Amino acid sequence: MTLRTYPRFVSIEGGEGAGKTTVLRAVRDALALDGDEVVCTREPGGTPLAELIRGLLLDPSHEPASAETELLLMFAARAQHVHETVLPALSRGAWVISDRFTDSSYAYQGGGRGIDPQRIAALDDGFVGIEPVLTLLLDVGVDEGRARARGRGAAPDRIEAEQDAFFERVRAAFLQRASEHPARIRVIDAARPPAEVAADAVRAVSTLRTPA
Amino acid sequence: MTLRTYPRFVSIEGGEGAGKTTVLRAVRDALALDGDEVVCTREPGGTPLAELIRGLLLDPSHEPASAETELLLMFAARAQHVHETVLPALSRGAWVISDRFTDSSYAYQGGGRGIDPQRIAALDDGFVGIEPVLTLLLDVGVDEGRARARGRGAAPDRIEAEQDAFFERVRAAFLQRASEHPARIRVIDAARPPAEVAADAVRAVSTLRTPA
Ligand SMILES: Nc1ncnc2c1ncn2[C@@H]1O[C@H](COP(=O)(O)OP(=O)(O)OP(=O)(O)O)[C@@H](O)[C@H]1O
Ligand SMILES: Nc1ncnc2c1ncn2[C@@H]1O[C@H](COP(=O)(O)OP(=O)(O)OP(=O)(O)O)[C@@H](O)[C@H]1O
Ligand SMILES: [Mg+2]
Ligand SMILES: [Mg+2]
Repeated sequence: MTLRTYPRFVSIEGGEGAGKTTVLRAVRDALALDGDEVVCTREPGGTPLAELIRGLLLDPSHEPASAETELLLMFAARAQHVHETVLPALSRGAWVISDRFTDSSYAYQGGGRGIDPQRIAALDDGFVGIEPVLTLLLDVGVDEGRARARGRGAAPDRIEAEQDAFFERVRAAFLQRASEHPARIRVIDAARPPAEVAADAVRAVSTLRTPA
Repeated sequence: MTLRTYPRFVSIEGGEGAGKTTVLRAVRDALALDGDEVVCTREPGGTPLAELIRGLLLDPSHEPASAETELLLMFAARAQHVHETVLPALSRGAWVISDRFTDSSYAYQGGGRGIDPQRIAALDDGFVGIEPVLTLLLDVGVDEGRARARGRGAAPDRIEAEQDAFFERVRAAFLQRASEHPARIRVIDAARPPAEVAADAVRAVSTLRTPA
């Protein structure tokens, strides 16, 4: 792996309803305390074109993407996101917090859909080339996460419509990634109340802040 | 390269307005003479999802795709096309004629956008895995082809809006591919009248027909 690490790039990962979007807000507020610019973004998405690709990925109205098509669409959206949003923000000195990044491809297309992680790594090396300095992996049981996500009331998208066994494989693949990248990925027990989860997340990112 | 060649798979390549769609009809009629099923398809496209990806690629209303994003979207569409349309048709014994296939990625994203052909070959090996037994490359001067395409009167899409120098690089990359794959790629002088071009194309595919 020859990925370049950026010291102000943080990703938040986890399964459905783990609390990623909730934690992102707490992390953003903590990083903004020093007056720095903080760019919050998400995957798949983060540019107008990448959001349109997200629409194709999640829309259940056309035929299902093959596992390989889904993987390539995710990396197309990611290449655009990195090129148009993430790198320009990092270059001007901003913090970037991304709600999902490449670890989600290892978890969903790798663990969930069964694509060999080496094929994912080849796309990561060839078309992404960067990684966060810190990834917060919010880990929660599949039942609990799905119940939380359902609580929001929206109709399930194409990925949310998968079976529990799919999400168990996703969770296991996330934890496998964490065991392979212990310096970068911090696992946070997200079964606890939101305030406790957010406090752990804020503590972890605060170690990245460098006094001026 | 470890691509599998299918004896009933033919692609038609060339720049804008070279006459691909015109030739495809003549080739289809010639292959249908024996009563075989003939599936005509196109790239980017060839399935409902792949046609939606085509829409994203050609739509000038969002920000431009980076060269890498464009390449990954092309291969996402191609992976879906191969998986859903091309291989099922070939497996049941049909002929497949595709209006553009992988050579177009070497020409447009390689020659036109400047992506290293080795990066394209890696996607071809990893996510496509098949090649036509015969590719008809319709070669015509850029000015002549663009004048023909303009004659159809539609507004230019995102790729058609490129400058002449882009299309000169595309043409050169197609001819480079032909020189590297002389057994598969037949170059046809497409500056001649339609009936002569079609006659050459039909003669070339007729050698593929095996008497029952
Ligand atoms: N620690 C928590 N305990 C209980 N509920 C929580 C917790 N964190 C978030 N929630 C609630 O669960 C729901 C899902 O949270 P959130 O949207 O942050 O998760 P997510 O990981 O972003 O989900 P998705 O994968 O669907 O984007 C929300 O209603 C949120 O208020
Ligand atoms: N050999 C030829 N000589 C002159 N005109 C031609 C010839 N072949 C096709 N044409 C005309 O040129 C126009 C473009 O042809 P066609 O649509 O077949 O090209 P194409 O390669 O499919 O173009 P595109 O890349 O835009 O899909 C049409 O109006 C067609 O009738
Ligand atoms: Mg969320
Ligand atoms: Mg055409």
